[in-house]
Amino acid sequence: MGEFELLARIRERLPPAVPRVRVGMGDDAAVTVPGGATATSVDAIVDGVHFRRDRCTPAQVGHKALATALSDLAAMGAEAGEAYVVLGVPHGMSEEECIELLDGIVTLAERTGTALAGGDVTRAPALTVAMTVVGHAASAEEFVTRAGARPGDALVLTGELGAAAAGLLLLEQPELASAVSAETAERLRERQLEPNPRLGAGRALARAGATAMIDLSDGLGADAGHVAAESKVGLRIDGAAVPLANGVAEIAKAAGLDPLTMAAGGGEDYELLAAMPPERLPAATAMETTLTTVGEVVEGAGVEVRRPGGPALEPSGFDQLR
Amino acid sequence: MGEFELLARIRERLPPAVPRVRVGMGDDAAVTVPGGATATSVDAIVDGVHFRRDRCTPAQVGHKALATALSDLAAMGAEAGEAYVVLGVPHGMSEEECIELLDGIVTLAERTGTALAGGDVTRAPALTVAMTVVGHAASAEEFVTRAGARPGDALVLTGELGAAAAGLLLLEQPELASAVSAETAERLRERQLEPNPRLGAGRALARAGATAMIDLSDGLGADAGHVAAESKVGLRIDGAAVPLANGVAEIAKAAGLDPLTMAAGGGEDYELLAAMPPERLPAATAMETTLTTVGEVVEGAGVEVRRPGGPALEPSGFDQLR
Repeated sequence: MGEFELLARIRERLPPAVPRVRVGMGDDAAVTVPGGATATSVDAIVDGVHFRRDRCTPAQVGHKALATALSDLAAMGAEAGEAYVVLGVPHGMSEEECIELLDGIVTLAERTGTALAGGDVTRAPALTVAMTVVGHAASAEEFVTRAGARPGDALVLTGELGAAAAGLLLLEQPELASAVSAETAERLRERQLEPNPRLGAGRALARAGATAMIDLSDGLGADAGHVAAESKVGLRIDGAAVPLANGVAEIAKAAGLDPLTMAAGGGEDYELLAAMPPERLPAATAMETTLTTVGEVVEGAGVEVRRPGGPALEPSGFDQLR
Repeated sequence: MGEFELLARIRERLPPAVPRVRVGMGDDAAVTVPGGATATSVDAIVDGVHFRRDRCTPAQVGHKALATALSDLAAMGAEAGEAYVVLGVPHGMSEEECIELLDGIVTLAERTGTALAGGDVTRAPALTVAMTVVGHAASAEEFVTRAGARPGDALVLTGELGAAAAGLLLLEQPELASAVSAETAERLRERQLEPNPRLGAGRALARAGATAMIDLSDGLGADAGHVAAESKVGLRIDGAAVPLANGVAEIAKAAGLDPLTMAAGGGEDYELLAAMPPERLPAATAMETTLTTVGEVVEGAGVEVRRPGGPALEPSGFDQLR
């Protein structure tokens, strides 16, 4: 199979172009008319680093590549717009597997209103999917960066933490599954393999007046640290307030880990952490998930995760190349 | 070295942000205010597929990654805008090499007026550089696609062909260098390792009224085939009119190859092939390189490369995953 043939098969599978995209896949470049302001993010996942081909389907790889990229747009409060994919294909990966992977991308793209507008296919020693996503807003000021948190702001969190880390443990140590019901185990694995970008929640938080926002890819501690550094403030997080996903405590216990440490350090939950003035909290509605106040923004620097009856949690993420 | 540290070092080395980029590298996404229309292209190069680390410097890898991506913008007639880089770093590649690679990107970015606005760093089994580039125009109609060539248009080519293929031969078979002067050999190797995106020529051709345009990455035959297919026309190319770079004939002869076949099939010259009404040709001025009429657009389909006293050239490129 040649690059051109695969790209032609990809083009056949795409839904009709949206009005903003004037020229889609198949020319030297895609042509779009953005309107207001754009938020652009790039993200890559590599077999053996971010996923393992032997533990998931090609569709799940495609899903995860787009989902983790779109999560960055969610953290800006952006409306999803276009996606561009670079597919690095190893020897031995079939055309059918490539198409399955693409279907994983297209399914999530359609669900989130994202247009797959361009792509490149190359040989690579390991399956690699690099995604570029472009999101939109009427003006640059509508986007929420990491830099606007102010002392006195409340820290809020969407959804629940720890499911992706517990799911990874279940994939690595299947025997841990006996600690939870089969249904719960399956849901935890899904949260690891098919993360869900919080695009609706991100827009709702931006509209409500979030001053800073980030998606939790590296873990609560590490990602909160980015907000603290960029906003030049301190963040105080109440560990007891951090909601853990169902089954996380049981899996952590079975693995001999502290549940909060696992949930806050494991990353990959792709929930959103936002700062906003407490009086704006009631405006943060119409979201697809729960919203929990987990702490506050203070003068100073750094992140402190306090918890009842224990030492402060070391807010370290996975600070390595991954 | 962690990802965050490398990204921080990258940020330090960036030139000051341009007005269009409101939020640059370091947040969840870059924020830009595009104005009119955008052209977006993604392109990846992989060690062992598009280059070999043992044959070039890290800076040349960075240069080539950005140059080949910008070449797609040149082929749209776009003004270069922003670039986003995904760097896949293999074990054993040092932080200094990463920074050298980045410097290769930044040097070409500054020369071409491109803002490096975002990036991601990950582990990978082989050095991989995926670039996303965004170019601009006042309106979508100003961009030149592959689809607008009309029967009666002239086919014009920037610069000269064959240098990149000859340079690759010289890298693979250093003994061929005796066929040309040391200076010529060095220039041919440079055309392979440090291609030059024809951004100025692309804009000039677009302003002059080019109806279709493509950059020659896969080779004259294959790329002309894309224009023919998308424009639903035939292209007739006069092989004798195709200008070959200095030294190409000698290297081809020393390697036992036909010079035109090598020049038209080898690709990677990143010159531009454009169609335009013959009466518009005088308007195509103010370019950084020569412009040669090499053929014409006719009714029909496909590409015919005619040459004096020989059979028609098979217009095949490198139609495989590379």
